[in-house]
Amino acid sequence: MATILILGAGVMGSALAVPASDNGHRVLLAGTHLDGEEVRRMKQAGGVHPKLDEPLAASVEILAHEEVVPQHAEAADLIVVGVSSPGISWAVERLNALMRHRRPVAFVTKGLDGQGDTVTTYAEAVPGQVREMSAFIGIGGPCIARELANRFPTTSIYASRDLEAAAYARRLMQTPYYRLATGQDVTGVEACAALKNFFAIGVSAMQTRHPDTRRAGAQSKNPMAAAFNQAAREMATLCERLGGKRDTAFDVAGIGDLHVTVGGGRNSRLGHLLGVGRTVSDVMANELAGETVEGIDTARVLAALFAPGGRGGALDSDKFPLTQAILDAVLEDTPLGFDPGRLVFA
Amino acid sequence: MATILILGAGVMGSALAVPASDNGHRVLLAGTHLDGEEVRRMKQAGGVHPKLDEPLAASVEILAHEEVVPQHAEAADLIVVGVSSPGISWAVERLNALMRHRRPVAFVTKGLDGQGDTVTTYAEAVPGQVREMSAFIGIGGPCIARELANRFPTTSIYASRDLEAAAYARRLMQTPYYRLATGQDVTGVEACAALKNFFAIGVSAMQTRHPDTRRAGAQSKNPMAAAFNQAAREMATLCERLGGKRDTAFDVAGIGDLHVTVGGGRNSRLGHLLGVGRTVSDVMANELAGETVEGIDTARVLAALFAPGGRGGALDSDKFPLTQAILDAVLEDTPLGFDPGRLVFA
Repeated sequence: MATILILGAGVMGSALAVPASDNGHRVLLAGTHLDGEEVRRMKQAGGVHPKLDEPLAASVEILAHEEVVPQHAEAADLIVVGVSSPGISWAVERLNALMRHRRPVAFVTKGLDGQGDTVTTYAEAVPGQVREMSAFIGIGGPCIARELANRFPTTSIYASRDLEAAAYARRLMQTPYYRLATGQDVTGVEACAALKNFFAIGVSAMQTRHPDTRRAGAQSKNPMAAAFNQAAREMATLCERLGGKRDTAFDVAGIGDLHVTVGGGRNSRLGHLLGVGRTVSDVMANELAGETVEGIDTARVLAALFAPGGRGGALDSDKFPLTQAILDAVLEDTPLGFDPGRLVFA
Repeated sequence: MATILILGAGVMGSALAVPASDNGHRVLLAGTHLDGEEVRRMKQAGGVHPKLDEPLAASVEILAHEEVVPQHAEAADLIVVGVSSPGISWAVERLNALMRHRRPVAFVTKGLDGQGDTVTTYAEAVPGQVREMSAFIGIGGPCIARELANRFPTTSIYASRDLEAAAYARRLMQTPYYRLATGQDVTGVEACAALKNFFAIGVSAMQTRHPDTRRAGAQSKNPMAAAFNQAAREMATLCERLGGKRDTAFDVAGIGDLHVTVGGGRNSRLGHLLGVGRTVSDVMANELAGETVEGIDTARVLAALFAPGGRGGALDSDKFPLTQAILDAVLEDTPLGFDPGRLVFA
């Protein structure tokens, strides 16, 4: 039995407590300063996370933000960070405040780090910031948290430059329903984890842009498949540019996760509304008011790669018609201009 | 203006007449001996193919089987074969009867050729059989025929060892809504075109196997994304084994076409019913009685690659859990046994 400390009692952090506790480990699920309500509800007898369907195992120790102390980090064999991208700086500070000994830390947080015209993944940006982190493990793959919490078959990859650390985390977390690959291309996994949110906006837009009104479901299939394929192509090239391997984009962290992300969630919802001609500012002021749409944050950082004079030379936007269309929609607030008719194949 | 002879007035042959005639070419759409009813309906004033929504352009010359003569092949700059896989032998005979001069021939027919324990694609099997074919062009990609006929944005690849021939066919056929890549890996395109039907059965089964009864739509997403990703992995390895390039499986002819094929059609319908525990023989005797399910034909040929003593050594079925589950379901008529829990990642 090991001890696993999960930082963040949001939907993903809480869901990861399920395979961890099913494997018989001691699980400490620690809320952030923003998780007060979730923690209060889960601490009740039979309490259920507001966005999950089932209570966690009684053995999971649920901790409010103010209850978490360095002894919890010290007891942990593995720390899992389950916050979303706006919480990454908070998580770094918190890890530094709590960790007094070297421990491996696995991140489900997905995002890109932008400083001026430099764009890096968390796999590059975070390790130097957390003093006692013995290994950075990036978690990617098609995983809707609620489905994992309900033990639906789910696949993911645990990637780390330290392959031993990734394999150790996999041994702790894998169950018959949670199937884990390991790999060393943590930069690629982190790049794809962020990029898939961005591309899901564009692929989802093609679900609504060409309604097939003469058939049940009213949804055409060719345009969306074209956009899915184009997203995979552009994701692979961007992944490589960010220091990852192309192949990573064509596996669980890339096309696998893109598949699930197009299937539902906020990035996809934004895309569906852009597909019918709405603008980002309009949707964010109405249907998605107050929500975090991670693909938008990724777009803001990604734009630097196409800026003239950037380090390593700007990317040729003609080769990225889908990327460019999403960037324009997000940054210029114009209707999404992507059409497969703009594709120019070699 | 060029002349394009399309052999086969089924749904795909007829749909290809749309971009061809939109480009101003003379289009001869020639029915097979099985297309009598389609040809009769299309020849009426304003006549529409029974499975398409709109009449073809008046300029398309529709020919009944018995009306087609060698002069039509002679007039053609490009011949397109639009029959389905059971018609491939017929098409070869017909081309030999009609062609007296060398012409490039493009095939939308998707299938594998099995002789004993040898499995090849049509790109290998067909060229030696058609005397006057100057180039074999394989067409792959996510293209539901009816959507192409309705001018929905659609992507495909035209592949040939003779890249000039592929580029020529692309010039004739590409329109603003029909975007074409070209490539030389015709073996890979043909392999993927056949394999995607087969894998669509297994991926579609995962759409129905784990109903998410607590949410609208009642469909879980993680298991299907896991299966889609696994299909891409196994398709890439099988594509390579059949002589194609892995990368081809991760582009329009592979994941692009798989995406659309899972979205609808007979392979997908069979998969949905297997997912709820039905058997192939049961479904083929009831819901799909009398229909051609091309993934089943592919399964029968593919089995030879896993047979002990086959040329080049049998493939290790442990590395192909999805392939093996589909093969068992089709060949042993057992319920489909695939579960992502059987995935063993490296």
